[in-house]
Amino acid sequence: MIMVNTLVFGHKNPDTDTIASAIGASYLLNHAYGEDTEAVAQGKPNAETQFALDYFGVSPLRIITSADTENVVLVDHNEAAQSIDNLADVHVAGIYDHHKFAFSTSTPLYITAKPWGSVSTILFYEYKQNNLELPREIAGLLLSGLISDTLLLKSPTTTDFDRQALPELAKMAQVEDVNAYGLGLLKAGTDLSSRSDKELIDGDAKSFEMGGKSFRIGQVNTVDIDDVLARQAGIESEMQAERQAEGYDNFLFVITDILNSNSKAIFLGDANAEVKAAFAGDLVTNVIDLPGVVSRKKQVVPPLEKQF
Amino acid sequence: MIMVNTLVFGHKNPDTDTIASAIGASYLLNHAYGEDTEAVAQGKPNAETQFALDYFGVSPLRIITSADTENVVLVDHNEAAQSIDNLADVHVAGIYDHHKFAFSTSTPLYITAKPWGSVSTILFYEYKQNNLELPREIAGLLLSGLISDTLLLKSPTTTDFDRQALPELAKMAQVEDVNAYGLGLLKAGTDLSSRSDKELIDGDAKSFEMGGKSFRIGQVNTVDIDDVLARQAGIESEMQAERQAEGYDNFLFVITDILNSNSKAIFLGDANAEVKAAFAGDLVTNVIDLPGVVSRKKQVVPPLEKQF
Repeated sequence: MIMVNTLVFGHKNPDTDTIASAIGASYLLNHAYGEDTEAVAQGKPNAETQFALDYFGVSPLRIITSADTENVVLVDHNEAAQSIDNLADVHVAGIYDHHKFAFSTSTPLYITAKPWGSVSTILFYEYKQNNLELPREIAGLLLSGLISDTLLLKSPTTTDFDRQALPELAKMAQVEDVNAYGLGLLKAGTDLSSRSDKELIDGDAKSFEMGGKSFRIGQVNTVDIDDVLARQAGIESEMQAERQAEGYDNFLFVITDILNSNSKAIFLGDANAEVKAAFAGDLVTNVIDLPGVVSRKKQVVPPLEKQF
Repeated sequence: MIMVNTLVFGHKNPDTDTIASAIGASYLLNHAYGEDTEAVAQGKPNAETQFALDYFGVSPLRIITSADTENVVLVDHNEAAQSIDNLADVHVAGIYDHHKFAFSTSTPLYITAKPWGSVSTILFYEYKQNNLELPREIAGLLLSGLISDTLLLKSPTTTDFDRQALPELAKMAQVEDVNAYGLGLLKAGTDLSSRSDKELIDGDAKSFEMGGKSFRIGQVNTVDIDDVLARQAGIESEMQAERQAEGYDNFLFVITDILNSNSKAIFLGDANAEVKAAFAGDLVTNVIDLPGVVSRKKQVVPPLEKQF
């Protein structure tokens, strides 16, 4: 059995940027730095990611829940709650991330963090700096991660670095009509009809700690928010079940219209006042309007944290 | 009054690498990224740093204890205990560091961390990547920070990146005999006769948390350990006074012979067993032998942390 020295992986409930940046970082480390790494994932690809993998002919990553290597490299996350079970027992050798930080180690390490739209963008510039050519499929995956996390450059998380990287990656990936590819990719992630209520709320959910309580925040992209709200009763029932099973004090499920850049959210928990204040809105049958909101990281988490 | 947008500073009790990297990072941010920053310091330069400032004709930095700007950039540290008083109230826009991490933010940020010998080395490569020419005095300060933190490449924290950077920086700084300059710099930091016992234990001391208790670790470089131990009674009296005044549960004062790469340490506290186990030695009249030890970060802190 061949054992690599280092596993490279993104967060739980992997999205396209997490899978793309695990693959992109592993290739970079192996070919620019002579490291011996394997890209793996903490779950199977979602429908959007599978669209990108199929388009560029890449196999899904091996799934792990804990690491059996001495070293790990984290991409697209740094908080233990979003990482593998035995993170505390392995050596974190490096991090590529674009989130807020809540991280500690007992030894120095490599960290490349930038407040940009996607980790895929950060890696694109790392390839440039190292004069390492991107194979077509890796350029294509990084392009997909960038499109996914910035909603085709429409998210307020988008930076000039993302805008400049997109056409360059599209060219390397031999994608001639990047808008058509991008809309196809995003729409592939919005076919929610085949997904159960539980799959919807689990899909891209992350746990945060706010004011000493756990706050679960899920998000789905759609082209029709009402389609999703038609399933509100079933969704709430699954949210309630998870709150009890996992001990989430609060659960916010954000439904984002990627065509019109708006969201609504379903909230269950004991922080009604904080949620209403954070988004200057009302909760009507557990639903709050989030006009103009598309980014959990930039438009959902910070205003919530301010309330705690 | 001219107000900059961002202050750039290193840790409390500044050493040469902290001053050099504050100056080097500020110049890089201003000239490669168009930022509006000022390098400042949390204290006056020590004798070694003053030697470097004098040699390259650079004025000491303005001293601050808290920031009056919206943004800050941390160099050579990331832990709040080593930073300014109002760190929690300002936006940490970026970090350049080579230490272990214990850091959290509420927003994404720039982090460039590498487990190399000095932050000066990290910055040297940042200049290279940005094709930004180093003025002689900045090359000279980064050279000094690199020499200081790696003890002229003798410390076990030294990496190949440091070894490659040293001659390049020496050339840019127009230092022809880098060994002579380096020994002059290090010896300037070992003239302890003019420093009081309290100045000795404060000089480069940092606070750590281990097993829920505070652990203060100071270090001085010398060319004769016995010269320092001749002052043991006075040093212990100051250590004891600081333990009471500041609430340090444990205080380890490491005395390092930079010519022979050995240390001895004075320990006061309630963790005798842990200290003896960490260094596999005995405490005789509060002194423990640390053969081969020169690096607090690599050879003192990790074995201590393992015991807690």
